[in-house]
Amino acid sequence: MLAAAGGASAQEGMRPEMSEFYTPVTTVVAPGTDMQGGGFTAPSDAIVLFDGSDLSAWENSQGGPAEWTVADGVMTVDKSKGDIRTKEKFDNFQLHIEWRVPENIHGEGQARGNSGVYLQGMYELQVLDSYNNSTYVNGQAGSIYKQTAPLVNAMRKPGEWNVYDIIYTAPVFKEDGTYRSFPRVTVIQNGVLVQNNTTIIGTTEYIGFPKVRAHGAGPILLQSHGDPSEPISFRNIWIRKL
Amino acid sequence: MLAAAGGASAQEGMRPEMSEFYTPVTTVVAPGTDMQGGGFTAPSDAIVLFDGSDLSAWENSQGGPAEWTVADGVMTVDKSKGDIRTKEKFDNFQLHIEWRVPENIHGEGQARGNSGVYLQGMYELQVLDSYNNSTYVNGQAGSIYKQTAPLVNAMRKPGEWNVYDIIYTAPVFKEDGTYRSFPRVTVIQNGVLVQNNTTIIGTTEYIGFPKVRAHGAGPILLQSHGDPSEPISFRNIWIRKL
Amino acid sequence: MLAAAGGASAQEGMRPEMSEFYTPVTTVVAPGTDMQGGGFTAPSDAIVLFDGSDLSAWENSQGGPAEWTVADGVMTVDKSKGDIRTKEKFDNFQLHIEWRVPENIHGEGQARGNSGVYLQGMYELQVLDSYNNSTYVNGQAGSIYKQTAPLVNAMRKPGEWNVYDIIYTAPVFKEDGTYRSFPRVTVIQNGVLVQNNTTIIGTTEYIGFPKVRAHGAGPILLQSHGDPSEPISFRNIWIRKL
Amino acid sequence: MLAAAGGASAQEGMRPEMSEFYTPVTTVVAPGTDMQGGGFTAPSDAIVLFDGSDLSAWENSQGGPAEWTVADGVMTVDKSKGDIRTKEKFDNFQLHIEWRVPENIHGEGQARGNSGVYLQGMYELQVLDSYNNSTYVNGQAGSIYKQTAPLVNAMRKPGEWNVYDIIYTAPVFKEDGTYRSFPRVTVIQNGVLVQNNTTIIGTTEYIGFPKVRAHGAGPILLQSHGDPSEPISFRNIWIRKL
Repeated sequence: MLAAAGGASAQEGMRPEMSEFYTPVTTVVAPGTDMQGGGFTAPSDAIVLFDGSDLSAWENSQGGPAEWTVADGVMTVDKSKGDIRTKEKFDNFQLHIEWRVPENIHGEGQARGNSGVYLQGMYELQVLDSYNNSTYVNGQAGSIYKQTAPLVNAMRKPGEWNVYDIIYTAPVFKEDGTYRSFPRVTVIQNGVLVQNNTTIIGTTEYIGFPKVRAHGAGPILLQSHGDPSEPISFRNIWIRKL
Repeated sequence: MLAAAGGASAQEGMRPEMSEFYTPVTTVVAPGTDMQGGGFTAPSDAIVLFDGSDLSAWENSQGGPAEWTVADGVMTVDKSKGDIRTKEKFDNFQLHIEWRVPENIHGEGQARGNSGVYLQGMYELQVLDSYNNSTYVNGQAGSIYKQTAPLVNAMRKPGEWNVYDIIYTAPVFKEDGTYRSFPRVTVIQNGVLVQNNTTIIGTTEYIGFPKVRAHGAGPILLQSHGDPSEPISFRNIWIRKL
Repeated sequence: MLAAAGGASAQEGMRPEMSEFYTPVTTVVAPGTDMQGGGFTAPSDAIVLFDGSDLSAWENSQGGPAEWTVADGVMTVDKSKGDIRTKEKFDNFQLHIEWRVPENIHGEGQARGNSGVYLQGMYELQVLDSYNNSTYVNGQAGSIYKQTAPLVNAMRKPGEWNVYDIIYTAPVFKEDGTYRSFPRVTVIQNGVLVQNNTTIIGTTEYIGFPKVRAHGAGPILLQSHGDPSEPISFRNIWIRKL
Repeated sequence: MLAAAGGASAQEGMRPEMSEFYTPVTTVVAPGTDMQGGGFTAPSDAIVLFDGSDLSAWENSQGGPAEWTVADGVMTVDKSKGDIRTKEKFDNFQLHIEWRVPENIHGEGQARGNSGVYLQGMYELQVLDSYNNSTYVNGQAGSIYKQTAPLVNAMRKPGEWNVYDIIYTAPVFKEDGTYRSFPRVTVIQNGVLVQNNTTIIGTTEYIGFPKVRAHGAGPILLQSHGDPSEPISFRNIWIRKL
């Protein structure tokens, strides 16, 4: 839509805050409980990406071993090791992933439990401690980062597990590299709908307009963000091809 | 789409099985577990339709009291009392509902735990014991009845609770009573996607083609089906307006 | 949606009129004029399918020569020769086609200038003399045959040229042969919108429900209908790949 | 999508060229001819907005008389009088409009026959002499200004009439002022598809990101642009409510 690949020179002078929006303010909704604070385990046709034991389904951004910490059935970001991504690539999928920021998390705004789930390695579903933590609405947890704010703020407090259930429809491209059909995504956080078949209009860009860049199947990428806050953890990750 | 209100005479001779389809066969997927066999409880902005205590949010089809059985935090169909529906009417919503067929269920095909969740009182999301129970694919649990088969068969066995998480987009009508935009629905059963932003093409009809009939907000209706099998139960029902 | 390939036995007893609908009645709109009663000629990037000279872009249903009559810059159906189709196959396209029923046309209902433009060889945009000619609304000119009535009846009278401008989006299929995305079509007849991004729910069937059948690129097929009325003519046919 | 109403301070430092994109380059397509260089005249159910005689259907931006020049069946921008808009407001519609830049047009880029057709007074379909005139692709004729480039460049040369046939679907808003469904538009220029059911992501902004602002029915507005080039003309304007 908006942006094609080019326009580089026109983007000079763009600053990150130009794509940060603060209204309408997102309503806070306290999610319900499930009995143990977790979502569904993998159904029989799912590819298990992380069951608590090891990172064998993952690699780092250079294709080497994924070296985040695994302990007690949980993987935790090691900020010295960078992002990790699945070895397998995906098109259309249903993805389940759970994440938790430490109970003793410090920092504020984007510097508080910042991470992200990149769909097809291109489009970021934001992960952040948005519990009593103010930031731009299209940068809080559940947002399509720098694009679409979540419908509500359905955060659990630090130390508790958050659950994302994601239904993703991959884009189809025309020969000129523009979208024939856009990527779309539905996200349920802790049982509460936060993205409702949202059209993704381009790649996630920290600065400037989303871009349109043709691509095929891509990995699920988990972000190791440089913010100085305590690292976040993930568990119970599985995906089903649609 | 297909059908407008009329065409009554043309529909003579239609039989129910004319809109029953058997292929492609739906793949069976064993759903994952959540720790207690239930889904999320109501978030803070939900309207609780049934929390286990009483049927005060419901009425029967004549607007009188809903008289299904309530015991042990569960409501159970009383087939002598007919359908029940919410007193409140809804447009766009997220609905959570759990249902269970008795462990000792008897019968087969459509005569085995048959019920349904009617969206806006018009469009049936089928409820049926489809665990090791063969029937037409657009009539099994998770189907938009007589329209769209579920993507997979994600049933739990009799005696266990099934969970439906439903995201519903109401239709918009033109002045002539036809759809400007069609109703659409996403359904997750037991954590497994079974309807993916499916377009509903008209009313649920036991015989013949779906019909298009203009309507406004409508209730959630639970079906008391005349099949002779043991009655099914519901629990943990809540809805969020979108 | 509705129908997968099967269900053959269930379809026994289906009669053609079961999928014929008569309401809401389509409003008659007298189209405007263009100065010569014709639409745009082919733009520079179009594939010219018929420019008045010959049928070299066409073949019959067996792959042999297309043997309809060509005279005076116009092709006319030869009912003894059957349907014709383009040799080339298409996916997404913009199609321009003009058609005319003879000034002295006889017959009524479906037996009056009946033909059709089959998109990808599967989905029929109806051609019929619907000028002062009553039939089921989902069978008149501008309908997606036996599915969706035109928004209005924008017919010109016999002897005058009708213009169809068609924008077609091909379906995308999943591996199981069902639609990942449905075919969609916009049709402008004589400058008047008659189909507005209509979802096509399956193949055109004379009897019974539309079917879902996986396919790739397909031809434009023009129907030689067996009705006894005088044969119709076509001119100025061009297509642009999208 | 992107932007809600706010974020004003964040938008400081935005410059117009930040939302101007130059790739992929738009292919030039020479449109076909119709016999007289014009499109269809108004069908019987259309509201005629300009038939060549007077501006009685129009007003200026303050609600006073529209004072552009009318001569020889054509209206021509009077740049001293500002924009004009229809007195009547519209939701969903089909709009036909023809426009012509003078044969002796001077200037280049955006300073060459610049005008625009604002849908519901909010969303600009760009009008510009894009014949052998280079500018950013999302600013050329047929673009949704500063959002989506046309599929191809289907311009006629100065002195000839260009035809826009526009199918517009109005947005539906949620109570918080964000889109429940986005505006969408299809545009055919000179018989060539240039926008194919394009999603409009927000208001047209010269500087910065599109904004989301709730609105109801709105007028068709024709822009009197301040560029110093010779003024453009319009004729044969009609609209049909959908």
